[in-house]
Amino acid sequence: MKVSIIGVTGYGGMELVRLLLQHPEVEIISLHSHSQSGKTVNEVLPQLKKLIDLPIETIDTKQIMKNAELVFLATPSGVSKTIASDFIAAEFPMIDLSGDFRLKEPVQYEKWYKNSSVQENYLEKFDYGLADIKSEYAKKFIANPGCYATGTLLSLAPLVQTTNIDVNSIIVDGKSGLSGAGKNLTETSHFVAVNENMSLYKMNSHQHIPEVIQQLKEWNQEISAIQFSTSLIPVTRGIFITTYVKSKQLFENGEVEKLFRTFYQDNYFVRVQDPGSYPSLKQVIGSNFCDIGVAYNPATKIITVVTVLDNLVKGAAGQAIQNLNKLAGWPEELGLKMCPMYI
Amino acid sequence: MKVSIIGVTGYGGMELVRLLLQHPEVEIISLHSHSQSGKTVNEVLPQLKKLIDLPIETIDTKQIMKNAELVFLATPSGVSKTIASDFIAAEFPMIDLSGDFRLKEPVQYEKWYKNSSVQENYLEKFDYGLADIKSEYAKKFIANPGCYATGTLLSLAPLVQTTNIDVNSIIVDGKSGLSGAGKNLTETSHFVAVNENMSLYKMNSHQHIPEVIQQLKEWNQEISAIQFSTSLIPVTRGIFITTYVKSKQLFENGEVEKLFRTFYQDNYFVRVQDPGSYPSLKQVIGSNFCDIGVAYNPATKIITVVTVLDNLVKGAAGQAIQNLNKLAGWPEELGLKMCPMYI
Amino acid sequence: MKVSIIGVTGYGGMELVRLLLQHPEVEIISLHSHSQSGKTVNEVLPQLKKLIDLPIETIDTKQIMKNAELVFLATPSGVSKTIASDFIAAEFPMIDLSGDFRLKEPVQYEKWYKNSSVQENYLEKFDYGLADIKSEYAKKFIANPGCYATGTLLSLAPLVQTTNIDVNSIIVDGKSGLSGAGKNLTETSHFVAVNENMSLYKMNSHQHIPEVIQQLKEWNQEISAIQFSTSLIPVTRGIFITTYVKSKQLFENGEVEKLFRTFYQDNYFVRVQDPGSYPSLKQVIGSNFCDIGVAYNPATKIITVVTVLDNLVKGAAGQAIQNLNKLAGWPEELGLKMCPMYI
Amino acid sequence: MKVSIIGVTGYGGMELVRLLLQHPEVEIISLHSHSQSGKTVNEVLPQLKKLIDLPIETIDTKQIMKNAELVFLATPSGVSKTIASDFIAAEFPMIDLSGDFRLKEPVQYEKWYKNSSVQENYLEKFDYGLADIKSEYAKKFIANPGCYATGTLLSLAPLVQTTNIDVNSIIVDGKSGLSGAGKNLTETSHFVAVNENMSLYKMNSHQHIPEVIQQLKEWNQEISAIQFSTSLIPVTRGIFITTYVKSKQLFENGEVEKLFRTFYQDNYFVRVQDPGSYPSLKQVIGSNFCDIGVAYNPATKIITVVTVLDNLVKGAAGQAIQNLNKLAGWPEELGLKMCPMYI
Repeated sequence: MKVSIIGVTGYGGMELVRLLLQHPEVEIISLHSHSQSGKTVNEVLPQLKKLIDLPIETIDTKQIMKNAELVFLATPSGVSKTIASDFIAAEFPMIDLSGDFRLKEPVQYEKWYKNSSVQENYLEKFDYGLADIKSEYAKKFIANPGCYATGTLLSLAPLVQTTNIDVNSIIVDGKSGLSGAGKNLTETSHFVAVNENMSLYKMNSHQHIPEVIQQLKEWNQEISAIQFSTSLIPVTRGIFITTYVKSKQLFENGEVEKLFRTFYQDNYFVRVQDPGSYPSLKQVIGSNFCDIGVAYNPATKIITVVTVLDNLVKGAAGQAIQNLNKLAGWPEELGLKMCPMYI
Repeated sequence: MKVSIIGVTGYGGMELVRLLLQHPEVEIISLHSHSQSGKTVNEVLPQLKKLIDLPIETIDTKQIMKNAELVFLATPSGVSKTIASDFIAAEFPMIDLSGDFRLKEPVQYEKWYKNSSVQENYLEKFDYGLADIKSEYAKKFIANPGCYATGTLLSLAPLVQTTNIDVNSIIVDGKSGLSGAGKNLTETSHFVAVNENMSLYKMNSHQHIPEVIQQLKEWNQEISAIQFSTSLIPVTRGIFITTYVKSKQLFENGEVEKLFRTFYQDNYFVRVQDPGSYPSLKQVIGSNFCDIGVAYNPATKIITVVTVLDNLVKGAAGQAIQNLNKLAGWPEELGLKMCPMYI
Repeated sequence: MKVSIIGVTGYGGMELVRLLLQHPEVEIISLHSHSQSGKTVNEVLPQLKKLIDLPIETIDTKQIMKNAELVFLATPSGVSKTIASDFIAAEFPMIDLSGDFRLKEPVQYEKWYKNSSVQENYLEKFDYGLADIKSEYAKKFIANPGCYATGTLLSLAPLVQTTNIDVNSIIVDGKSGLSGAGKNLTETSHFVAVNENMSLYKMNSHQHIPEVIQQLKEWNQEISAIQFSTSLIPVTRGIFITTYVKSKQLFENGEVEKLFRTFYQDNYFVRVQDPGSYPSLKQVIGSNFCDIGVAYNPATKIITVVTVLDNLVKGAAGQAIQNLNKLAGWPEELGLKMCPMYI
Repeated sequence: MKVSIIGVTGYGGMELVRLLLQHPEVEIISLHSHSQSGKTVNEVLPQLKKLIDLPIETIDTKQIMKNAELVFLATPSGVSKTIASDFIAAEFPMIDLSGDFRLKEPVQYEKWYKNSSVQENYLEKFDYGLADIKSEYAKKFIANPGCYATGTLLSLAPLVQTTNIDVNSIIVDGKSGLSGAGKNLTETSHFVAVNENMSLYKMNSHQHIPEVIQQLKEWNQEISAIQFSTSLIPVTRGIFITTYVKSKQLFENGEVEKLFRTFYQDNYFVRVQDPGSYPSLKQVIGSNFCDIGVAYNPATKIITVVTVLDNLVKGAAGQAIQNLNKLAGWPEELGLKMCPMYI
């Protein structure tokens, strides 16, 4: 399958290239960028030398639709929506990594992204691509989930779908490395500001909250609010989410872990830890795995879920390719079985 | 005042030296260590050259009591108790940085430290030295609090003492740098295992839990359990604690922050952030400050407290010196007004 | 081809697994370790879950030779020599990642490794596997070069082989991340000792010096000594080598860079930078590339060569697989075209 | 002494505040900044809360001269020169941390800083403030040396002043943490670009080269060029310089180290390591020390000097205060005996 990537010089775009170079059924035929067009990808991205050398082109949607069979939009929220309409109008298959097409209600987008939404009937054309939960897609357009949303929803799905939780008790304590915030140069992304530091950056105001609640509500209509804060840790890649949920049920020793294991038994990319064991960030970095450990505290009736993923793979480009595999009818893990770096 | 330091080659001991060298009323007269005696401190600790040069001596308690006026025990839990009895018997002033004398009930020590406790009447002779809460001390012996315990208790004191919380709702999500675990060489302290990683290391099993509950109970007898997990982040110094508490009261906008500000208004070393602002780790590193930011989510009635401190200063050597100042009748902040490194 | 890996729990062994899982012609049929045998690889190495699950076996050389077609020794220097003799005696193909078979003269091994050497006729059976220089191998046994040696020799080969240098002027200033030192727990590998630090650890005493000089002498007999120091930098992976050489020739602007480009023109894995551009460590991490930038200072007649590589890939497991490809007659880059992580 | 600081929100300015708060003879009476005036220092710099609270004022030179006795210019190169003229005209004592007044020849400034120089007679009014070499100052204006220049000159002074070196052999391989580059937001200062990376950023083009050569020539007129490259390492603070010099003399074992020890015997802030020992960056961080280790290789006749310093203290604010102490006739180390953080 011939694909084009728009937004290749951002982290999501670079990671799509890195991963697709290993995919046996995909050929990258063109790369596009607003800011760097006119150069070759080797001039801008020295790591790619010898592996791929294509010009970086402007974003000519007609040309793309003529040559490619599917397009990835690795552009930021607010930019994707300005590019996508031609593809939507032409029913040309597209996987968008931004937040522009994830929320079904324009009012939610406008509230959380402080930006005007695309028209509602466009939003209906998209499947929310939570690849490890959704078994198949009905549509040609995928809105790839946010990195925090992916980790949070995979942490909560087994509990919300199969147990009786206190619906007002969900607390999500998320930590992310710096690549999650993209390449923007800000005071808070300067090395000196990040190194040897940790800081909370969004208290109940992260733009992934509405897509989490939208999905949770599909599973349990009574959930209307969560506590959700996000902090920066001094690593490049990775999301480490600790989720706390109060249960109305009592659980035996090991029962919650078993519940997760059963829930994810047919899922290649979600790995549930043994009882008493919690995943460390490094054990997934570079890979499409999402690793989960769970604990139940009988004294407080609180279930703690510890979830790790690589925000650029499972939280972005990897999940996008997993979604491509599903759209194309290939095995879900095709081209995605890369081993975590670990060291 | 002439002081001796036992355990000078550990992180707590080194930090005591670093800070006491700036104290106008204290003279370090001797340094002691099990493992390094016979060498000079300059041979073992190159950073101290030109600043202090004393031999590292064996631990001769009689000699210490003859020459010094107070002794710091910067030895690990399990070691302090084997050294302290001579000083206790002689009523010789002592500040212990380990966990050996913090818990009033031997059974608690034995449960959490998996070690035999000292006799109970020894434990009674110690004040638990939570310096920013305790106004003065009645005794000559101070059990300096644990680093996590200090941050957790300073996070919870205003809420537990002055508001109506759900006593079963306390969740403490603690993150620590590596120096908190001391110099021990373990698989989990190897650079490669820590760098670019984050991992949860103690789920409801950290040894600071019982001292937290012991103190919380003094403030509110109904508190009997908390959810408490601790993770390692790839920094050298610093503790970042996020505490979640569900309230039975409703609060107005800014009211919780005001409550904290009032509670700590006469306290030099606790700095409460402005509303909507949360402390970053770096703004306290190298100093004796503990900075706190608070948020109230009316949708979930959850109060979030974000607290940062330098585990080696406020969480160990700095608080020990603050306790010394109180014991000696000096101003609490004497010799402790060092500015955070920040950069 | 069926291969076995001895020493799978070390960094070199883990990296062999990571890379070989992507190799289209290789099947890992058994994993071996002294220290961890009896467990499965998933118990010890959580990153490998779902990707491979084999028992970790003891080192039974007969069994290995029965089932496999080639063996990788990813054991430390001093250990490989105790395992290798059965394979040597049986002429069973082996690639050794340690320093035990690189030096042709036992006296050199004994001087630099402070250990007894294997017998000299064993050493003769090995090819020194500098894969990017050697076009093919005559023997069944490969001594895989050291990571520093690889970078140093690729930095010097074009200059020593094709120009007229001052043979007493070679200075190698090497910097390495921590994985280069292996998993050993030492005071200098503790996170606190490494983080925010840089330290020189071997001044003219690194054990890779003799293999560098042995190879340089093959190219130019007049070279008998080099200045070689190595420092630790706070990263996990990567070697960054700055090499200084004084030339007896005068060069035009751009001429030295062109010389390198020509020298490496048919070499897939060595990438020469454009004039005025120097490689950064990240642009090779995770990959088998070695990137080189050069500068000529007409004022001092000094040529500076800046070389980066991933010590675990090009400096160990990747080069070992490249050597396997050569032994097997496959294309040199088979299974090794992984893209650098970069981010 | 009452002092004012211009450029307080930069790293140099912040560090001046941090250090001067500990100085027994100095009172900071006003803080100035182009970009942040109108706010208080506590709004901009959270670490300073409780320690100092002054408004950040515009740069009104008349007002400063009315209230203060000396002014620190912690402004960048190119900015200092636009502020300094009023102070120079009024002969008002000033210590400038930028590069604007270090070079005696305007043509050199214009070549290396690519900017117009101040008039030559202004430059003559400044002493180059290499505090550990200069015994006293004749003038009221100090041009504080660059961080790399400080380390390079302290590495070379003993050799150039007292031995017979090959004057064309000087190679300086400098490595710096990120704070050396200031707060500017650039692609190369983004956390993701720096973390787990190392990159050479200036090959024989660093703006500290001319001040190094200017000073070296004063010591030995025959020195006209050096090889000087600088790399970024992923730490916040610190400079690690390896200097290579070829000697025309032969040295006995330990002789070079003894030469350094004698040269710096009366110097409080330069600490020479024992033979065979090299300083690590951490042993000076946070302090005004410069630590030096030396090696002599009889095989190559190359002397290697390893020098570490904290670029913000010894390389900027600390040396500036040391210069203040000398100007004021106070002991050189007054207020500067802070212990390195080390941990």
